[in-house]
Amino acid sequence: MGKGEETKLKILDKGLELASTLGLEGLTIGVLARETGMSKSGLFAHFNSKQALQISVMEHAAGLFSRQVIVPALKTPAGIPRIRRITENWIQWTKEWSGGCIFIAAPAEYSDRPGKVRDCVMAQQSDWIDCLTRIAQSAKDVGDFRPDIDCPVFAFELYSLIMGFFIFHDSLDHPDVDQLMEKAFDRLILSCINPKP
Amino acid sequence: MGKGEETKLKILDKGLELASTLGLEGLTIGVLARETGMSKSGLFAHFNSKQALQISVMEHAAGLFSRQVIVPALKTPAGIPRIRRITENWIQWTKEWSGGCIFIAAPAEYSDRPGKVRDCVMAQQSDWIDCLTRIAQSAKDVGDFRPDIDCPVFAFELYSLIMGFFIFHDSLDHPDVDQLMEKAFDRLILSCINPKP
Repeated sequence: MGKGEETKLKILDKGLELASTLGLEGLTIGVLARETGMSKSGLFAHFNSKQALQISVMEHAAGLFSRQVIVPALKTPAGIPRIRRITENWIQWTKEWSGGCIFIAAPAEYSDRPGKVRDCVMAQQSDWIDCLTRIAQSAKDVGDFRPDIDCPVFAFELYSLIMGFFIFHDSLDHPDVDQLMEKAFDRLILSCINPKP
Repeated sequence: MGKGEETKLKILDKGLELASTLGLEGLTIGVLARETGMSKSGLFAHFNSKQALQISVMEHAAGLFSRQVIVPALKTPAGIPRIRRITENWIQWTKEWSGGCIFIAAPAEYSDRPGKVRDCVMAQQSDWIDCLTRIAQSAKDVGDFRPDIDCPVFAFELYSLIMGFFIFHDSLDHPDVDQLMEKAFDRLILSCINPKP
């Protein structure tokens, strides 16, 4: 990795950290300049505009999410083991960003702000829901899930459980959140499992 | 209802509307004075402090929620019909506050702000989760749910589905959210149902 790329990565890490606490809309080139000690003009050379900075930060977050949550799960056999792995990784990710997962905050923040940032945020969510739908389909394909399982419904159910987990963990500080999540996940899988694969 | 009480209710309605868009922390006596056209001193006579105003607004919201979501469901027979009714009412409530349900926003806003407002917000969430746990227990008591159903897990599952619904509906504007929710709810009930009541 060249020095320029390395610098850009460090800026993006800082940008993501700031966006996670201030909200993505609070992330401006001015704020980032103050926090990194770089000049505004230096940052403009990297990003051109606030909007391009925000989109770069969301793409950076998606890259981290992919490497931490998705890629390791794709190395696990398709079917229930892969779904279990992706869920564990997703929970771990959510816990690490406790105080503000950008993928939960940004859709709410941008739902009423049309523009390129919103388009990027919504496309990422849509890609993620498609990914969850595909892992359900592959669980059907290998015979782990019953043929009548509705994959988009499964994706919605798993997505919802993680949102519930996030709220119980992060906002409510619920003492039993880990056991609740584990039992709810097991029940979700049980409701899909193929008795005669 | 006396004129004083009527005035206070109008103020609380406006306060809740403002808190739902600005965040509860953004609701100050100054903002409320500007928006209602009342004097700050008049509002202080009603609420004494910003904190007391915020708590009054949350209690007002809880009263509305109770009348719209809980009370009509308690008139439905205990068991699955009551759970279905409470879920329908809750979805309706969530849709009406689209742009910001205070019970979803406030726990996130106050998770890191210790004090009386946080205590009130968290106690309300805890009461609500207890209520969901009790309706699951009453479904077991009347023989609709299997005896082995774990009521706190059911409460977590239903709570999670509604959070998923809220995000798909409000933030993501997902075209299939109603069918997804309906199918996921039916599957949840099916996973609990008692085959021989």
